[in-house]
Parts: sequence; C-alpha cells; structure tokens
Amino acid sequence: MHHPVPVHEGVLDANTTIARANREDFDRASVKVINLMSSPGAGKTTLLEAALNDLDGVRTAVLEGDVQGTLDAERIEALGVPVAQISTNDTFGGECHLDANMVRSAIHDLPLDDVELLIIENVGNLVCPAEFRVGEDVRVMVASVTEGEEKPLKYPLMFRSCDYILINKIDLLPYLDFDLGLFLSNLDSVHPDVEHALVSARTGEGLDGWKKWLLEAASLPVPAP
Amino acid sequence: MHHPVPVHEGVLDANTTIARANREDFDRASVKVINLMSSPGAGKTTLLEAALNDLDGVRTAVLEGDVQGTLDAERIEALGVPVAQISTNDTFGGECHLDANMVRSAIHDLPLDDVELLIIENVGNLVCPAEFRVGEDVRVMVASVTEGEEKPLKYPLMFRSCDYILINKIDLLPYLDFDLGLFLSNLDSVHPDVEHALVSARTGEGLDGWKKWLLEAASLPVPAP
Repeated sequence: MHHPVPVHEGVLDANTTIARANREDFDRASVKVINLMSSPGAGKTTLLEAALNDLDGVRTAVLEGDVQGTLDAERIEALGVPVAQISTNDTFGGECHLDANMVRSAIHDLPLDDVELLIIENVGNLVCPAEFRVGEDVRVMVASVTEGEEKPLKYPLMFRSCDYILINKIDLLPYLDFDLGLFLSNLDSVHPDVEHALVSARTGEGLDGWKKWLLEAASLPVPAP
Repeated sequence: MHHPVPVHEGVLDANTTIARANREDFDRASVKVINLMSSPGAGKTTLLEAALNDLDGVRTAVLEGDVQGTLDAERIEALGVPVAQISTNDTFGGECHLDANMVRSAIHDLPLDDVELLIIENVGNLVCPAEFRVGEDVRVMVASVTEGEEKPLKYPLMFRSCDYILINKIDLLPYLDFDLGLFLSNLDSVHPDVEHALVSARTGEGLDGWKKWLLEAASLPVPAP
C-alpha cells in the first residue's frame, strides 16, 4: 500500500478486529479454518467436493461465498456436509470478496462445536479476497493451468498470502501452450518455496495429496489462549 | 443494489460524473471506446493481439489495466500500437477494477486525436469492473469455456452489462466436461439475445467475426453533442 487512504485503512482495521473475534470463536470450538480462493472457474468447488467425499471421517463444514445464487452450496449440501451460504449481493451491486463481518454473520448458522474443519470458499477473484483476513488458520489458492504462466506476477498479493497452491486442470496440459516450469519459476519469485501440488479434479490425479494436506491442516494444534 | 450504502453511492455518483467527462473527451476526438473485461486468464490480451495484428488500418490505441506490472502492455506495444498502462496497485493494496478516474488519468498519455478506436483492457475480475462505467461506448466480455457453464448465473451483472460476449478457448471443448448448450441457455437467461461468438485465440477459429465486430464498433456514429 503505497499511498494509504484513510477510509480504506478504517475498513481494514475494522476487518482485522472482526477477524480476531472470529478466530477466538474458532479456537474456542477447536475448529481449524481454511480460506479457499481462486479466479472464477479455477475449480474450487470441484476440488472441495473431491476432498469432502472421503476425508477420513473428519467432521467438516463449509461456508460458501458467492455474489449471487446457491449453486455451489447445493453441490456441497448434496454430500451431507453442513453448509451455509453468504451472498455478497446485498451491498453495492455485489461485493467481490468475503470480509470478516460477512463470515461472522454466517458462522453461527453452522454447528461449530461439532466441526473440526471449516472450509470457507471465497468469491472467485484474485485481488480483494487476498486483502481481507476472515479469521482463517491457513489460506489455500487454486490456480488453473488454463489461466497462463504470468498470473503470480500479475496478482502477487494473492499468491504470496497463500500457504498452499493447488495447480489444477493439469489434465489439459497436453492441449495448452502452458509452460509449467515458467509458472513455477514465477510462483517462486513471488512466494519462494510455497508448498504446492499438481492436481486434476477431473481425472483425480494428485487429489490424495490434497486430502492429506487437508487432514494435516485439520489436526494443527490449537494455539494457547 | 438492494440496500444502498451512502458511501458507496457517493463513489458511484462520482464515477458517473467522471465517466461522462471521459465520454465527452472521446466524442470530441471521435474515438470509439471498448471496455474489455473477463476473469483472470480468460484470454483478453491474446484476443486483443490477434485483432490488432490485422485491423484494416483502423487507428487503435490500448489502455492496459492491471493490479501490477506491465506484461500485457509490453505485448501490445510490440505490435506498434500506442498503449498506456494503469496500475491499480497505488491504492488499498491493489484495486480490482478500473474506474472512470483511473481512465481519465491515463487517456491524455494517448494520442486521442489520432485514434479511431480505444480498447480498455480492464483488470481480470467478473465482479467490480461491471459496476464502474469508464466512458465506454460498448462493453465486451471474454468468457472461457474452461470456467464452467454456470458463470452467467453466478456473475449476472457482468454478463448482463456487456454488449458482446466472446466465448473463448473452444479448441479445448473436446477435453472438457463443458456443456455449451447449457452455458448458452444460462447466458440467455441473464442477457437474452446478447450477441456472442465462439472463438479460439489459439487456433484462430472465429477471430474473423471478432475483427468484423470491432470494425463495426469503430465506425459507430458519434452521438450528437
């Protein structure tokens, strides 16, 4: 942030305060929280469905963030997983990200005390979701190989702020002019050594690693109060 | 917009005023202006390169909007086309859209009096760019078939506010579980009868139609003052 603008700083300060309150509620309920982000159509929901289908009995819930509609929430609900929908369409013709207060307004619709892992599927967008913490433990980003090699350079805050990058749709690599080595080098230049995995939600390739990572995230120790 | 929020209304009012000033400048210079929008990685720049390579001598300039970097501007500049870069990274950790004032700050870097067609490549995002008019004549959106069929339902304002939809990457259709009929039906439900074209920037399929559309846009009559 080169030229701080007071009104925006105020927004972010308020967000930080509310994110902390969310965090305290999550800790009290011993819930690990993942903020899942990507461009529109990179495959967040499909990768989530794949993981939730078989997550070794870990009690999971999902918060779905969308500008409009409940399509993704319906897909998750069909798996028998508790899900709550946040629609960002109530303000300003549709907000392009979740903030801590939206998450706060929705978490009490979920049975937090019966949940070990909460996955928050953010609005599809590579800019603003990275700017708003919502009380999560870790951030996961899905990058589709169809989006091109230069995305880490164009959206560095998103790639830098995530703890785990799922590089999705690798089944399409033979049909794209996508240089995976260049993408990984660009990724390394904005977030050196970030953990990542090559996956295909369509063929199932790499999904075991994604599930293993989720199981480890679910069993992270709760920080001391 | 269901529950108007005064601060945001103010932002949009100011934007409308500045967009009108841009519009007057464009009309004075007899420049037609296209606002080109899409998700990250849907193919805006590649479709732009393809068109600019061979646009029947129409004098064109480009405004490139990005959160960070000048990668796309460099690609356009390599074609010998006048280009100016707007970086949205100066405020708030990066704005996710162009607004009328950002465009206003950049247009005077371009030789408007020598230009017939100005193409503004917006930041890759399906939400906020749709909310901010920048003084354009027409809006074009690129939707990639890799993004899934349900995108018109999830981002209806974007699909509804565009005059022409380029459905890109159709060379990948044989390798995707993408139901083109369902996508078109979803598109029709949010923007009935909107003009659209199936294209592949990679194979060149459909690009003649895109160029023809651009040429027609460039020759739209200037409205009476």
